[in-house]
Amino acid sequence: MSGALKRFLPMFDRVLIQRAEAATKSKGGILIPEKAQGKVNEGTVVAVGTGAVNEANGQVRPLAVAVGDRVMLPEYGGTKIELEDKEYTLFREGDIIAKIAQD
Amino acid sequence: MSGALKRFLPMFDRVLIQRAEAATKSKGGILIPEKAQGKVNEGTVVAVGTGAVNEANGQVRPLAVAVGDRVMLPEYGGTKIELEDKEYTLFREGDIIAKIAQD
Amino acid sequence: MSGALKRFLPMFDRVLIQRAEAATKSKGGILIPEKAQGKVNEGTVVAVGTGAVNEANGQVRPLAVAVGDRVMLPEYGGTKIELEDKEYTLFREGDIIAKIAQD
Amino acid sequence: MSGALKRFLPMFDRVLIQRAEAATKSKGGILIPEKAQGKVNEGTVVAVGTGAVNEANGQVRPLAVAVGDRVMLPEYGGTKIELEDKEYTLFREGDIIAKIAQD
Amino acid sequence: MSGALKRFLPMFDRVLIQRAEAATKSKGGILIPEKAQGKVNEGTVVAVGTGAVNEANGQVRPLAVAVGDRVMLPEYGGTKIELEDKEYTLFREGDIIAKIAQD
Amino acid sequence: MSGALKRFLPMFDRVLIQRAEAATKSKGGILIPEKAQGKVNEGTVVAVGTGAVNEANGQVRPLAVAVGDRVMLPEYGGTKIELEDKEYTLFREGDIIAKIAQD
Amino acid sequence: MSGALKRFLPMFDRVLIQRAEAATKSKGGILIPEKAQGKVNEGTVVAVGTGAVNEANGQVRPLAVAVGDRVMLPEYGGTKIELEDKEYTLFREGDIIAKIAQD
Repeated sequence: MSGALKRFLPMFDRVLIQRAEAATKSKGGILIPEKAQGKVNEGTVVAVGTGAVNEANGQVRPLAVAVGDRVMLPEYGGTKIELEDKEYTLFREGDIIAKIAQD
Repeated sequence: MSGALKRFLPMFDRVLIQRAEAATKSKGGILIPEKAQGKVNEGTVVAVGTGAVNEANGQVRPLAVAVGDRVMLPEYGGTKIELEDKEYTLFREGDIIAKIAQD
Repeated sequence: MSGALKRFLPMFDRVLIQRAEAATKSKGGILIPEKAQGKVNEGTVVAVGTGAVNEANGQVRPLAVAVGDRVMLPEYGGTKIELEDKEYTLFREGDIIAKIAQD
Repeated sequence: MSGALKRFLPMFDRVLIQRAEAATKSKGGILIPEKAQGKVNEGTVVAVGTGAVNEANGQVRPLAVAVGDRVMLPEYGGTKIELEDKEYTLFREGDIIAKIAQD
Repeated sequence: MSGALKRFLPMFDRVLIQRAEAATKSKGGILIPEKAQGKVNEGTVVAVGTGAVNEANGQVRPLAVAVGDRVMLPEYGGTKIELEDKEYTLFREGDIIAKIAQD
Repeated sequence: MSGALKRFLPMFDRVLIQRAEAATKSKGGILIPEKAQGKVNEGTVVAVGTGAVNEANGQVRPLAVAVGDRVMLPEYGGTKIELEDKEYTLFREGDIIAKIAQD
Repeated sequence: MSGALKRFLPMFDRVLIQRAEAATKSKGGILIPEKAQGKVNEGTVVAVGTGAVNEANGQVRPLAVAVGDRVMLPEYGGTKIELEDKEYTLFREGDIIAKIAQD
């Protein structure tokens, strides 16, 4: 993990995600031109916030995802974050659609 | 159940649903052209989230639907999810209209 | 009660209602053309949800209407539901205007 | 009180009101043409709901108006209800401006 | 106090106010034409509601203004109320800007 | 403090502020034309409300600013109040940006 | 720290931030024209508010950032504050994206 990433501490319920690489070849082995690769809605959690603050009672609930989790992301939303020339995306915990268990 | 489906763990109050197949023949036995088949608002629950978080007290309430339940869906809404080339739809628990008890 | 109707279990605070038939004759006995019959804002409750979830404390309150109740409906709103070729309308409990006690 | 009115049980915080008759003569005794009579913002409560549900704790608070109370109504709002050819107006308790004590 | 005013009981957090008369002469004694007198944002409380209902716990808090209090009103808002040909303005307690202590 | 100011009792979380005078000379001693002086976003608290009512539990929290405090104001907002020909601005406590401690 | 900065006490959940200087040279040592330097989304906390007031129970929670913390800021938002000719930006605690731990 890069230095900048290790020092990046998301606030509250924010989660930093590294999107999975888009497939460059179709299942039939045909090269997919970059433009047609489209955005991948899966990724890996690389940093998590300190917890979700409950607006009603002020308690802090730990987040339901952890570093290393593979997750499915919504089609839209998220904030681009660049750390040491690498691109990540920042989501709120509540926007993450699902966790994808390991094989 | 496919591998990808088994590993798909919806977050919180999200529910993954496989829509029922549209009828291809009318009751009179006449073939219905695909275009006229329209969307089916029924389906089966194939994966459920970890529970609905109560905004006021932070407690997590288990969802009122379970895997295998047949449900009626609203006309609109839901997010398309593709897993191993099969199409599913993701709804929030609160958007599901009704459960359809087995015969 | 039809099979489909018996198996239709509305979620939470939803209520399924069968609208009363529009009067086909005026009080003076004159036939009212279908177009002029207009929508009837009364109906009978045919299925009720499991209860209204209180957003603040998560408790579930039983609904204030029951199967068989005659009710008055708002001018607009409601979702059309077709079960075995019969048309019903789905309302939220909070949208029902009044109960109409039996004679 | 007519049969239909007696059987009309408003839900929750709804209040059924019969508007006072518009004055047909000015104080000087001059006939006011119907068109100029305008809507009267006063009326009498003829049916009250079962109570206002508190969204936060689910408790039901009895309504602050009762059958027979004379009340002042807002300029706009309210739903027209016809019972046995007589016209009433349905308001939410919170929209009623004031009670008018008897002389 | 007129009969109608005495019988006017505002609901909940509503406050009935009689606006102060606009000054008809400038400080230098020059007559101000009616059109230029503008609206006066001060007035006297002539009737108060039964109390403000707390949405969260249903408790009723007595209002912070009482009959006879001189108050400053916002530029806009308020509902015109006519009682026995006299004009008053109805405000919500929360809209009143300030109380003006007696000299 | 003028009589009118002393008698001005803001309601709840409202705070009355006297804006600081705009500098008429630049640091280099050059006269700034009135039009170019712009609005000053600093001022002194001259009257405070009785406290902020907590919407959820109805409790009243004393305000975090007191008479005499120097404060920084937002660029926009606030209501103009004229008392004995002097101009003040009324803000809600929550809109005040910062307190400016004395030298 | 300048006098004005020391005397600047943000209210509640507001945080005053000094943005990091934009890099004037690219990694290859080429001078970046001012116009192309763009806004830097990193900065250092120079003053913090008294705490975040919980709307539901009125309790005050200390802020999760402190003076001296390096933080990452959102692309948009924030209020410009000038103190002794130096420019700072004021954010709400909830808008700050992440803390950046020291090397």
